[in-house]
Amino acid sequence: MDVSTIKNPKFLKKLSVDQMTELADDIRSFLIQKLSKTGGHLAPNLGVVELTLALHKIFNSPADKLIWDVGHQSYVHKILTGRGGQFDTLRQYKGLCGFPKRSESKHDVWETGHSSTSLSAALGMAVARDLKHEHFDVVAVIGDGALTGGMALEALNDIGHQNRNMIIVLNDNEMSIAPNVGALHNMLNRIRSANKYNRAKEDLEYLMKKIPAFGGKLASVAERLKDRLKYLLVSGVFFEELGITYLGPVDGHNLNALIDNLNYAQKRKGPVLIHVLTQKGKGYRPAEMDEIGTWHGTGPYKIESGAFIKPAAVAPAYSQVVNDELQELARHDERIVVVSPAMVVGSKLEGFAKEFPERLFDVGIAEQHAATFAAGLATQNMKPVLSIYSTFMQRAYDQLVHDLCRQNLNVVLAVDRAGLVGADGETHQGVFDIGFLRALPNLVVMMGKDENELRNMVYTAIHYNKGPIAVRYPRGNGIGVPMKGKAEALTIGSWEVLRDGTDATVLAFGPMLQIAVAAAKQLESEGFRLSIVNARFIKPMDGRMLDQIAKQQTPILTVEEGMLAGGFGSGVLEYYHDHGVHDLVIERMGIEDRFVEHGTVKELLNELGLTAEQIARRVKKMIHEQAHRNQVRKVITS
Amino acid sequence: MDVSTIKNPKFLKKLSVDQMTELADDIRSFLIQKLSKTGGHLAPNLGVVELTLALHKIFNSPADKLIWDVGHQSYVHKILTGRGGQFDTLRQYKGLCGFPKRSESKHDVWETGHSSTSLSAALGMAVARDLKHEHFDVVAVIGDGALTGGMALEALNDIGHQNRNMIIVLNDNEMSIAPNVGALHNMLNRIRSANKYNRAKEDLEYLMKKIPAFGGKLASVAERLKDRLKYLLVSGVFFEELGITYLGPVDGHNLNALIDNLNYAQKRKGPVLIHVLTQKGKGYRPAEMDEIGTWHGTGPYKIESGAFIKPAAVAPAYSQVVNDELQELARHDERIVVVSPAMVVGSKLEGFAKEFPERLFDVGIAEQHAATFAAGLATQNMKPVLSIYSTFMQRAYDQLVHDLCRQNLNVVLAVDRAGLVGADGETHQGVFDIGFLRALPNLVVMMGKDENELRNMVYTAIHYNKGPIAVRYPRGNGIGVPMKGKAEALTIGSWEVLRDGTDATVLAFGPMLQIAVAAAKQLESEGFRLSIVNARFIKPMDGRMLDQIAKQQTPILTVEEGMLAGGFGSGVLEYYHDHGVHDLVIERMGIEDRFVEHGTVKELLNELGLTAEQIARRVKKMIHEQAHRNQVRKVITS
Repeated sequence: MDVSTIKNPKFLKKLSVDQMTELADDIRSFLIQKLSKTGGHLAPNLGVVELTLALHKIFNSPADKLIWDVGHQSYVHKILTGRGGQFDTLRQYKGLCGFPKRSESKHDVWETGHSSTSLSAALGMAVARDLKHEHFDVVAVIGDGALTGGMALEALNDIGHQNRNMIIVLNDNEMSIAPNVGALHNMLNRIRSANKYNRAKEDLEYLMKKIPAFGGKLASVAERLKDRLKYLLVSGVFFEELGITYLGPVDGHNLNALIDNLNYAQKRKGPVLIHVLTQKGKGYRPAEMDEIGTWHGTGPYKIESGAFIKPAAVAPAYSQVVNDELQELARHDERIVVVSPAMVVGSKLEGFAKEFPERLFDVGIAEQHAATFAAGLATQNMKPVLSIYSTFMQRAYDQLVHDLCRQNLNVVLAVDRAGLVGADGETHQGVFDIGFLRALPNLVVMMGKDENELRNMVYTAIHYNKGPIAVRYPRGNGIGVPMKGKAEALTIGSWEVLRDGTDATVLAFGPMLQIAVAAAKQLESEGFRLSIVNARFIKPMDGRMLDQIAKQQTPILTVEEGMLAGGFGSGVLEYYHDHGVHDLVIERMGIEDRFVEHGTVKELLNELGLTAEQIARRVKKMIHEQAHRNQVRKVITS
Repeated sequence: MDVSTIKNPKFLKKLSVDQMTELADDIRSFLIQKLSKTGGHLAPNLGVVELTLALHKIFNSPADKLIWDVGHQSYVHKILTGRGGQFDTLRQYKGLCGFPKRSESKHDVWETGHSSTSLSAALGMAVARDLKHEHFDVVAVIGDGALTGGMALEALNDIGHQNRNMIIVLNDNEMSIAPNVGALHNMLNRIRSANKYNRAKEDLEYLMKKIPAFGGKLASVAERLKDRLKYLLVSGVFFEELGITYLGPVDGHNLNALIDNLNYAQKRKGPVLIHVLTQKGKGYRPAEMDEIGTWHGTGPYKIESGAFIKPAAVAPAYSQVVNDELQELARHDERIVVVSPAMVVGSKLEGFAKEFPERLFDVGIAEQHAATFAAGLATQNMKPVLSIYSTFMQRAYDQLVHDLCRQNLNVVLAVDRAGLVGADGETHQGVFDIGFLRALPNLVVMMGKDENELRNMVYTAIHYNKGPIAVRYPRGNGIGVPMKGKAEALTIGSWEVLRDGTDATVLAFGPMLQIAVAAAKQLESEGFRLSIVNARFIKPMDGRMLDQIAKQQTPILTVEEGMLAGGFGSGVLEYYHDHGVHDLVIERMGIEDRFVEHGTVKELLNELGLTAEQIARRVKKMIHEQAHRNQVRKVITS
């Protein structure tokens, strides 16, 4: 059938399993075809086609609440709830969001993007239901990767304790974003193996023969029982121990099995976890064969070959530059180690991982642990680099305050995807860190104007030994400057004049500098000459240069790809007012008090007014205002 | 012995267990006596006397690393490492810190204060050791309460995976700060019970009689095995499943048992967890009998009676005011529920808990889950209040951004201990939240000038239905204003003029207002008249009032008990520069770019220059500067 014509999931109630199987095929073809044009999270969604069909058959959304952890696996849900027709706009400006979005559909009851939030939210909904004496089901679908996030474990603990009716579907695809790590994963693996090979059954038979009828040595029997029976008994014991009924493992591509188990779970009292085994990328060979997560989230691709269609990059990715410099430095400094919370592929750390497998620590989706683990390493004179997306660093805020900065430890924060990130949208924009990092004592914060300066900053950070230091860098590729022979250290707190002008000064850093330079060029044609300063150290700022600029008595505009409240521009205001300069025309451009949805970075900058045109307009206005002020002063003095 | 003469723990190596038992008694007497004068974390430390002695006997600190989770149980460690002589200054200004402090002793290898960080830090140290081919032991001591913190669970997962040699001592005292909650606790309880009553053994015997020799119905036998054997087999299976060797439970007051187990653990390969059962308050009857955590952290007390010596409070505690108003409102609005991450006693929520036991959710030390659980409740039209200390809210920063504010949910944040907290010191100061809350879209942030206004703010927050709203309030007692008959709603974003003056304006909120008023009174005697504005809404600010103030063309001073970078004062600078006001003399007082150690709030304010004297001095300077500017202007115009 044409799945883009589906209005709502009610029709599933009448479908036979055979018809649903056919529908699953249609949905897969649809996804493979649509995403080949738009890109998107293909593999996760191919993995949950049957699961989503089964959920919508058994439960009545939106009366029953379906909650998608992380949310990038909600495409099938979007199709079944009437949004198939919008897939041509997926993840595009003003188009269909790549994550659940309450404003899109009443079937999206909880918004996600960051992982591991679904269990807490589901428990909240279940408790509200019980307090209001209402009757509906609450189902959270969470991946095995997201389950290692601390807040998911906090929630499991509370769920077992509260004993509400709710269903957790553990979508175990053996791979979160990258292959899973950690002991929890190993445990799930053991359960999986036990099921596959029926090993447990053999174990038990073996054991039964050996058990003495009963007798005095029970303790040691118990010991052996514990070892021998483990394969069998542990199946679910982790969850059962927490007070959560465990069902499974269930073949996540077998509709009958899924329906049976969901039916059973619905009738059980208390929290139930269904352990569902799925295959990421199911039904699309290139994605099925993926072992490192390449097909997790993709750009456009050729369906036949599975080849990615990428515009020829004119420059290396910023993250690649960071990896390469770390790799180079690590050859000469054994203290350098890298810690990544499940983002080795995302942050292009494969090179480092391959050359230094024992010095690259992928700790899974566990940002809090990642940060403090790095801090622990630093206490022993190692040089840990915490490689972390700006948006996910929000999860480690307290650890930055309490462990890294307060103890003033030599940890390098490699802050990836700082600024706008584009298609991932609202939940992933790296726009808060400037403000929250700037307020932390002992921390240095910097961002380079291009890939070459970024490399110098990595070099600078590694050689810095007075405390924590953060290097921010954007998502995507550099601007194509030639890489100089060797990286070199920057003086901490030093800014750089990129253009010297007499009419006004723009202070900016990172990608905003290019836009500022474009604005300066526009204004040049109108006869205005702008100073452009590369304010590469967000903290500490270059006080000497700020003092010099103040002496010019010309307007100052700060431009940043981050929240205005408490951001870099505020830092500039603070500096001047702290230093008795109370009469400068200073204005700030950045992100107003709002969240920013998805779109290309260019579209978003346009929407936010962070363009060369807007900068030029703003500066002109400021120059006129300054001229007016000067004239008033003149009139007064004449 | 006089334990204040102990220089370092080496002497323990030669002590017999009998001598150590005697020493334990001496340490207990010392603690009970010293803390009766200074106050401090008595019960936790009385619980770990033998454990700490055993640790220092078996391990060689500081070569071996002893890490104290949370850290308030490190007093015995401080005594054994030569700091007994400083206990008269415990938690006092410039005195002995109540938590591990690296600057105090080389035996303090990791600083704590917030919970659940020890495992990540310990793993970092173990990895550093292995990479450097060094040889030492790493031991983390963590309580059963701290173990429910998400980051501890993240760390356990990684510890099981990495399989390094390290020792985790699970100090299971059946009570974290308040009685423990959650499924993990229940599990530990079952283990404890199994051990105590030997129930498991009976179960096994019973079972053995029932098992058919072997046969076709293995699955159902296995099912029964699973149920029946649980009491026995679960002993440690949770940890063993994660790849961590489990030892115990061990009687934490039996030195022989502790020494044996630590010795054994030291020799084992890979991570080992020793489950130690201790009694909080052991050896001091009033603390032993405490069931709700009163003796966790105390002020001075009378040793004989166990009565607390408290100065007669002139006013109710701020947290009591919040509880009482919530309790009152909850009687008329069934949607109101309260979520607390293990701080029911700390935030004085006992009244609400008693009257509405089904609407008070103590989720344990789990701030992330607490915040998102509250968000989930809000999606179903409940009115959740997240009661949380400012400093612990740092743990839920991402949840505030991603779940509460981004989804614009009606959650009330009751931010307790906002501002300086006194004796708990550096790790607990609530000085970052102004900045980080202010940058979050959709959020309202307020703080009252006294207990009466706080009550009105609670009322306002509960009746607000346009998104999340935060009420900050300080630690300690109100200022003694009469409570008006009924609470009333404040207009969102409205400020209030407390004193009208013509020479300068001070903008402040919360406890800083009293100090500002005192400064105004001082200046009055010198002929200066100050305006004092109660800037009770930190966000949104009162634009109309700010505009009026600007028209006066007199200096403006902002005063806040929080970080200056990005704080309230920066918000004022932002407002004026955003609105074309570039020529006002505006200065800010608050906390410079540094962490603030322990002391009384008064001492700390003094150190930080946040006093009436300093405000008066600053304002006078600003008035003179303004006068000078005016004069220059006059000269120019004449």
